[in-house]
Amino acid sequence: MQKLPKVINRLAEKFERLPGIGPRSAQRIVFYLLHNPESELKDFADRLLALKKETCLCSKCHQIAESDPCAICEDKSRDQTLLCVVEQPLDLIALEKSEKYNGLYHVLHGCIDPLNHVGPDELYLNDLIKRLLGVKEVILATNPTMEGEATAMYITQMIKQKCIEQEIKITRIGHGLPIGADIEYADGLTLMRALEGRREV
Amino acid sequence: MQKLPKVINRLAEKFERLPGIGPRSAQRIVFYLLHNPESELKDFADRLLALKKETCLCSKCHQIAESDPCAICEDKSRDQTLLCVVEQPLDLIALEKSEKYNGLYHVLHGCIDPLNHVGPDELYLNDLIKRLLGVKEVILATNPTMEGEATAMYITQMIKQKCIEQEIKITRIGHGLPIGADIEYADGLTLMRALEGRREV
Repeated sequence: MQKLPKVINRLAEKFERLPGIGPRSAQRIVFYLLHNPESELKDFADRLLALKKETCLCSKCHQIAESDPCAICEDKSRDQTLLCVVEQPLDLIALEKSEKYNGLYHVLHGCIDPLNHVGPDELYLNDLIKRLLGVKEVILATNPTMEGEATAMYITQMIKQKCIEQEIKITRIGHGLPIGADIEYADGLTLMRALEGRREV
Repeated sequence: MQKLPKVINRLAEKFERLPGIGPRSAQRIVFYLLHNPESELKDFADRLLALKKETCLCSKCHQIAESDPCAICEDKSRDQTLLCVVEQPLDLIALEKSEKYNGLYHVLHGCIDPLNHVGPDELYLNDLIKRLLGVKEVILATNPTMEGEATAMYITQMIKQKCIEQEIKITRIGHGLPIGADIEYADGLTLMRALEGRREV
């Protein structure tokens, strides 16, 4: 029985490991790439190799950046007394896009998730405390999931225990109905949070 | 507004061009790759570069292979009077997996598809005629789609016109209900073909 050249399966294996790509799509992608000129593949390979070389983690906020410290940590015009804790680098980008926040950030790179063996030590949690000097408010912007809530609770406890002398306001990002949503289709938990978070008009 | 390092978007662009991957999945893949060690990325890049270098088109049947001529065309134990025409390299692999066919192949690398500007000249059709010397039967195994049927019809006409002296049997691969299917859910066209293709038991 004739088989495909080994390199096809070896490349397909690599694509299969990526999130959201199954064996069939991986094969389809490799056959698509076979029709590409070699220069295109070279370009693709170069960008893969550059990925780690041209990025670094900011040693302060742990955002993925081109320089260390990153542009936000370097920016002295930002409110240095405000610190927003997020789970992932893309969460920071999303918050920045809203253009409503002018403080600093702290990226945890995950959330406490015991089922997947992620405890507080696997996150950038320890140096959060060191960054709190001079900070007046910590905004916990972890995701409204079970793990995100647990992480927010853990951070709250940690700050309350370790920063007794300092008066730090700890806030949680608002939960409720997203703009454009329909009450009819909202789940019970979201509605509960929306009622809890109601404001006087 | 802070942006992601350029290399992230530049790599995401490459993934976005692949079939079945949208902008969001591309970004997700790049962030997944950021958590991979550099050696893994190097390996991925190497396999990409090897893809074109370690494969070639068989000059006889046009299958993607490691050697030219490919293992099937080289195999003298196969029936040299039988030629099966398929659209894509993967179609050949699928037919080989059935282990029921012992003739030669001819891979067109597509089908006649005027809406996508693919005419007979864009396919490996011209050298099909040259290969017909000594062939007794041509099996047309293009897909049972509109384009595949048109291609099969075109090839039939072409062979009838150009090989007048030679007696070549032209057959179309059987159509009907796939094994394991349910008549209740089969579409009308498939059932029509299944009735046309009925055989005495």
